[in-house]
Amino acid sequence: MLVIELDTPCVVIDGAIVDRNIQRFQTYCTYHGLNFRPHVKTHKIPELAHRQIQSGAIGINCQKISEAEVFVDAGIEDVLITFNILGEKKLKRLVDLSKRCRLTVVADNTETIKQLSTYFKQEKSSVRVLVECDTGAKRCGVQSPQDALALALVIEASPSLVFSGLLTYPAPEKTLEANDWLQEARELCKNAGLTVETISTGGTPGMFSAHDFSVATEYRAGTYIYNDRSLVNHGTCKYEDCALTVLTTVVSHPTEDRIIVDAGSKSLSSDLLGLEGYGYVVEYPLAKIYALSEEHGSIDFSACDLRPKIGEKLNIIPNHACVVSNLSDYVHLKLDDHVSDSLPVAARGKVW
Amino acid sequence: MLVIELDTPCVVIDGAIVDRNIQRFQTYCTYHGLNFRPHVKTHKIPELAHRQIQSGAIGINCQKISEAEVFVDAGIEDVLITFNILGEKKLKRLVDLSKRCRLTVVADNTETIKQLSTYFKQEKSSVRVLVECDTGAKRCGVQSPQDALALALVIEASPSLVFSGLLTYPAPEKTLEANDWLQEARELCKNAGLTVETISTGGTPGMFSAHDFSVATEYRAGTYIYNDRSLVNHGTCKYEDCALTVLTTVVSHPTEDRIIVDAGSKSLSSDLLGLEGYGYVVEYPLAKIYALSEEHGSIDFSACDLRPKIGEKLNIIPNHACVVSNLSDYVHLKLDDHVSDSLPVAARGKVW
Repeated sequence: MLVIELDTPCVVIDGAIVDRNIQRFQTYCTYHGLNFRPHVKTHKIPELAHRQIQSGAIGINCQKISEAEVFVDAGIEDVLITFNILGEKKLKRLVDLSKRCRLTVVADNTETIKQLSTYFKQEKSSVRVLVECDTGAKRCGVQSPQDALALALVIEASPSLVFSGLLTYPAPEKTLEANDWLQEARELCKNAGLTVETISTGGTPGMFSAHDFSVATEYRAGTYIYNDRSLVNHGTCKYEDCALTVLTTVVSHPTEDRIIVDAGSKSLSSDLLGLEGYGYVVEYPLAKIYALSEEHGSIDFSACDLRPKIGEKLNIIPNHACVVSNLSDYVHLKLDDHVSDSLPVAARGKVW
Repeated sequence: MLVIELDTPCVVIDGAIVDRNIQRFQTYCTYHGLNFRPHVKTHKIPELAHRQIQSGAIGINCQKISEAEVFVDAGIEDVLITFNILGEKKLKRLVDLSKRCRLTVVADNTETIKQLSTYFKQEKSSVRVLVECDTGAKRCGVQSPQDALALALVIEASPSLVFSGLLTYPAPEKTLEANDWLQEARELCKNAGLTVETISTGGTPGMFSAHDFSVATEYRAGTYIYNDRSLVNHGTCKYEDCALTVLTTVVSHPTEDRIIVDAGSKSLSSDLLGLEGYGYVVEYPLAKIYALSEEHGSIDFSACDLRPKIGEKLNIIPNHACVVSNLSDYVHLKLDDHVSDSLPVAARGKVW
């Protein structure tokens, strides 16, 4: 089937661009001696995780247990879950998961450590734990290298837990400060007799500066596999490196400049990521997607010489590829102008 | 099971509030002699559509064919699809659907009319068509009462199509202008010998002013069944009228005022609808959900006297209930503090 014959709106992935994106960053990491651990939240598709691992990635990064379970069920053997895991239901699932893969988790507080230790000890099992560090991004994480050491000591002293190192999601443009932060924390841990096996950092926007992060042993990135408008805007890639597009149809042309398409926030998401507008129209680069309702995208064509006809199909590169994956039950892989395969987004909606 | 024992994040619906919301607006419409046609995009659950119809609604409103199919499969007999439907795949499905329910569609352009007529004629079938009118909301719709008449005449002259009236989604606060607009269009149509059976308007924010819309025969509203923060902000309802909450767990407390929960944009969506912040924390009304990433919600508690503990569960009323439904595979119904049922969100992700 031709891509243009697909019913819209739908997500189309260019397999050749995916392969090129995987290869490019893996080559970079290998050259710089960094372990690479892709965040699978971007694609949520086991087949693509296997491609990443076959290219040299050491394992995967997930955010939630239910997401990790999908990938372990599909044969992935090394998983890092970068989320404080709490509560009986989740901890029982986590212990089960740890028996089926090489599992690492994170903690930034003593309550998480206490609960992890309790459940893994009950099952006479153990798990590797990294201390999550807030090096400037201001989300989760301990607030100072001294606090990192303090938590590392609690982990080391907790039955069934193995302190394995430090993890951060650095603030964009603050990787050098983050590097200094983690270097200090590593020295404190070493001086206290702890082994800091892993120092994990990440982020697609800054991925080609990862070699400046001298203290890191491991890099995590997700969006790089597809890329998106936010990364083009950041200068990380070009539009021709964007593998994911939303195919949509023009359904209304009520005024000279206003065109309505059948992709709204249920297809493109409302994520702006600091940008103006909700995506890039490949065939009409000057068109502006200025508003979304759930099923309608409103596009201003006043800057364009031409107008599409009602019924014409347009490709939109979204602001944020990861959230688009989470809105789709499956994606269509394309090879040139043809649909080569359709893959279920197996870990879509896995928020637990 | 107690609601508080549910794994998080998850969507919880208070069945008593749902019933009260359904009853209140149905009573209003019945009193004012308006047909009421709920938009099912808010809940996407056939069981709730049946409750709406049992209470007096004349049928349902859908935005897409795939959404309508779910409800007709579940026994709903009267469906209005408020979207220009184009393309062979969709039109074949539409003809099939028209054989299983009383179907009405809309059109705001001649290409849609041509395609509708072609496919319904091929199948020796017919369909009711309303002219979609842009009375100020600036999305789809013909631009003037004269254009509405012109399109009505094209519909009336098209084989297999039955012109059935006019439809608008009015701009908030411009219902009187919209009423004048449609009154003029109706007169033009009547003078041209056309029967204007239905004049359909809608919108939850202005629903209790629907009686001012004197020309309307039918009102459409969706969000009213659950309500949400945007409607509280608009003055349409109070927080105690909000039936849908996202149950979430505190997973990190990195600084005095910053608390992180396990519900991010994959649970609450990034929809702001003009508001500041991403939801209302029921237990801490002064807390501000100032940022979301996909799996994390960042909340500022600086205005609150107390702080929740790590592991504590919080209820969040989202800005926009409809998009939250679309992110969830199922919702939990609650009766007081107990989970009384779990319902699949059968029409989640139906964007075609």
